[in-house]
Amino acid sequence: MAVAMRAARMAGARGEVPVGAAVFGADGTLLAEAGNEVEARCDASAHAELLAMRAAARRLGRPRLEGCLLAVTLEPCPMCAAAAAHFRIGTIQFAAYDPKGGGIDHGPRLFDRAGALHRPDVVGGVREREAADLLTRFFRALRRPPSP
Amino acid sequence: MAVAMRAARMAGARGEVPVGAAVFGADGTLLAEAGNEVEARCDASAHAELLAMRAAARRLGRPRLEGCLLAVTLEPCPMCAAAAAHFRIGTIQFAAYDPKGGGIDHGPRLFDRAGALHRPDVVGGVREREAADLLTRFFRALRRPPSP
Repeated sequence: MAVAMRAARMAGARGEVPVGAAVFGADGTLLAEAGNEVEARCDASAHAELLAMRAAARRLGRPRLEGCLLAVTLEPCPMCAAAAAHFRIGTIQFAAYDPKGGGIDHGPRLFDRAGALHRPDVVGGVREREAADLLTRFFRALRRPPSP
Repeated sequence: MAVAMRAARMAGARGEVPVGAAVFGADGTLLAEAGNEVEARCDASAHAELLAMRAAARRLGRPRLEGCLLAVTLEPCPMCAAAAAHFRIGTIQFAAYDPKGGGIDHGPRLFDRAGALHRPDVVGGVREREAADLLTRFFRALRRPPSP
């Protein structure tokens, strides 16, 4: 989660929503890390998780990430949760919960559904406060009127 | 849909699951087309819809596709349906229904949910038979034992 947290801070520094993700192999090797790049890539799907999983799969040379761990600083949205199932991620650890946009413990709760394609193990709330504070500060700064 | 269908046939010819997608601007201009590239890119998220929406946004130079039409030969899965919401796609036309993997008229029915991020207009069943036949032939050929 420390790697994901670092990627989140770097994303925030670039003006992106500060969410970061990292993928580790079954042996604990760091395979990929990424922060949000929605603005930089002109790509509404360039969420940290999706970028990290794509990079990890590219690195392994196969489109599946069985046994891998995805660590991410915010509860994945339905797009990223469903992508984690397509990638056959073994475990998802996330930090802050996202009651409005989350797709695992909130909204469609994709892995709780009968007929779910794949069900990773999920651990939420890992370093929750730190990740939530990062997001709160980012959005508070956005709403603040520019100084004269 | 003709463009999406052509992309689907080309994907099938490359050994990918034959699904194709195209994105058109509000004025009807073709912005992007793509077929599945999961195997070629080693990327379980490289579904036709996601590739076409990313390419269209890149072409427009902005991460949102307000007013655009996404045509796709198979009902989008939850990942692609949620991505279409992130991209703020105006209309989704799809051909074949996907009772097992679809996320719009099946499964989590993402756009019917209270609190959905965005709700594109959706038209399903456009040239349904043609798209379904393409998929059926592809999977039938996969299951056929190789000739001696």
